[in-house]
Amino acid sequence: MTSLNSPADAAGVLGGVRAEVRATPDYPFIPVHAPVKLDQNESALDFPRHLRELAVRRMLERDWNRYPDLHADTLREKIGAYEDWDAAGVVVTPGSNVIIKLLTELGGIGQRILTVQPNFSVYELEGQMLGASLTRVPLRADFGLDVAAMKRELAAGGPGVLFLPQPHAPTGFLDEESDVRAVVEAAGDDWIVVIDEAYHQYSGSDYRSLVLERGNRLSLRTFSKAWGLAGLRLGYALTHPALAANLQKLVSAFNVNVLTQVVAEVALEHPAYVRERADEVIWERERVQSGLSGLKNLHALPSRTNFFLVRTPDPSAAYAFLLERGLLVRRQDKQPMLAGCLRVSIGTREQNDALVSALLELDRELEVRE
Amino acid sequence: MTSLNSPADAAGVLGGVRAEVRATPDYPFIPVHAPVKLDQNESALDFPRHLRELAVRRMLERDWNRYPDLHADTLREKIGAYEDWDAAGVVVTPGSNVIIKLLTELGGIGQRILTVQPNFSVYELEGQMLGASLTRVPLRADFGLDVAAMKRELAAGGPGVLFLPQPHAPTGFLDEESDVRAVVEAAGDDWIVVIDEAYHQYSGSDYRSLVLERGNRLSLRTFSKAWGLAGLRLGYALTHPALAANLQKLVSAFNVNVLTQVVAEVALEHPAYVRERADEVIWERERVQSGLSGLKNLHALPSRTNFFLVRTPDPSAAYAFLLERGLLVRRQDKQPMLAGCLRVSIGTREQNDALVSALLELDRELEVRE
Repeated sequence: MTSLNSPADAAGVLGGVRAEVRATPDYPFIPVHAPVKLDQNESALDFPRHLRELAVRRMLERDWNRYPDLHADTLREKIGAYEDWDAAGVVVTPGSNVIIKLLTELGGIGQRILTVQPNFSVYELEGQMLGASLTRVPLRADFGLDVAAMKRELAAGGPGVLFLPQPHAPTGFLDEESDVRAVVEAAGDDWIVVIDEAYHQYSGSDYRSLVLERGNRLSLRTFSKAWGLAGLRLGYALTHPALAANLQKLVSAFNVNVLTQVVAEVALEHPAYVRERADEVIWERERVQSGLSGLKNLHALPSRTNFFLVRTPDPSAAYAFLLERGLLVRRQDKQPMLAGCLRVSIGTREQNDALVSALLELDRELEVRE
Repeated sequence: MTSLNSPADAAGVLGGVRAEVRATPDYPFIPVHAPVKLDQNESALDFPRHLRELAVRRMLERDWNRYPDLHADTLREKIGAYEDWDAAGVVVTPGSNVIIKLLTELGGIGQRILTVQPNFSVYELEGQMLGASLTRVPLRADFGLDVAAMKRELAAGGPGVLFLPQPHAPTGFLDEESDVRAVVEAAGDDWIVVIDEAYHQYSGSDYRSLVLERGNRLSLRTFSKAWGLAGLRLGYALTHPALAANLQKLVSAFNVNVLTQVVAEVALEHPAYVRERADEVIWERERVQSGLSGLKNLHALPSRTNFFLVRTPDPSAAYAFLLERGLLVRRQDKQPMLAGCLRVSIGTREQNDALVSALLELDRELEVRE
């Protein structure tokens, strides 16, 4: 084929592209390579080796030339059994960010999206591109839910979708259960209430019973964090059959492929490692925080997830300082309320030691400069 | 958890669900098991065994706990090299039906979707659920494009998305290139023009050069048919960098998982089997059609794909007759213009022999009954 760089490439020919999409910037992620990867809140440990071997053996027994299960029924049954949830209320997709898109399609287009600020960028990106009216309620200064402000917005009325992360990303904050309940109960039946529990294994929180109380509520979960399977791209919703049936209409047919189904089934048959590793992460997180408790010019914020924020006087310099030492973290300083903040994942014991050493060194350097 | 079957499940609590979604029926596919599966236009042969083995070995060398390539850049480069296409104009998703959804998001919400009738149901399902204004132009009696009618609809104006399958599903018809060109050239710059080429390896057609001529055109392709990888769920678009960049904004981050990327990379490094098998399917298709040329009460319609239609006086009885003989096909008789029609995939030589025998037997039975 000849070059594509003809005048016809100009935006003039893209009159069919909706203005909301054209106005949206690209997804803000540029891969950077470094020896120690603490930038994406992944599990530092891979899916156990013997389970990887078991999974690939089982893959070789399946047909790759046939469409998979339309709605991944076997997988949904296994998730249901694991979560003690009716399989008719389970929806699976290639990553939980796909469910966020589908929820925006379900209840956001031409309607409202309500969330907090700062937030997980996908909520607002999808809302913006698909034509939802977006409302972001700032968190309290301590990163907790502003219950009164949320209730005011909910009372102003839907229809729409409420996205409520517990624990919260990117702050790592876990709200009081009474605050979460107050917000959720303030949402009328014209709101779809989504509790995003991507990190719940690290916080000990679990909002299944709150979801169960009313048919417009949904818990969002993922294999990307505590299950150590971010590369697999598998997320799921736990909700009520009627809401699940409507969400399922929007799931592209055969959306979860046969390889993913096999790996997830193997994981769900051998789930013991998940709790064990999550406990190890919690232990490491507290050890790291304790190691950083004497910081003077930096400040490590508490967290209930597998990551935490570090507030710095100069995030650009701090990011570069860590990267020079082989430690890749994620800048969050452009988010509201997060001036100066870097986000750091909990890694292996050795990686965490290296991180603590580097942050202590940076803190001393800042001391000297003043 | 206790039962979900509480009064709260009633639709009354689902006031947040958009009316367009609530009004949409579930995806019309119920799995039926039978020894010979000719119902989904899949490849009868699996991805070659040695490539499956190679792929799983390579999977074991990758990280499963890390997010994959954000936009699957390596895979896009390999597809670009295979298709002789700028990688910046390649977009990959888990199945080409995901791209159909994204195109509806890109140019259909609150705008127009134009396609032909009968059609591939996903075009109109997504359009209906996402709030597009849907126009279906009936095909000519011989299943060819009604060029004049299409030109009138395009001239009525966008903005919107035109979905044009070549060859066409579910009829198997391939239009004259001059007809396709006439329709595509009639679309102004406020239309995104999509040529769905899912089956092009069986028709010998290839609209890359027509796509290349203008920045609002796109070819849709898949690994589900000629590549023998329907279980993998991988589709892609070939388009211009500016249109690709806008479409890419709508692709959920990390959408194609690490296992899929590995398998597709292996396939693209060993593509010779694709042409060889497609030629075999074409040979078998013509052999089957020739075997059915003497039918009196049934009618096998010509096709340029890996499936064909059989018109029957009683599609329900014909479907049951074939199923009793272990042959699973797909009913299409509810589609406009397709009264009495079953859709049958080309299988292996033995499967095709069984199909021909069964259809000849049914034809004789119908003869006797009259």
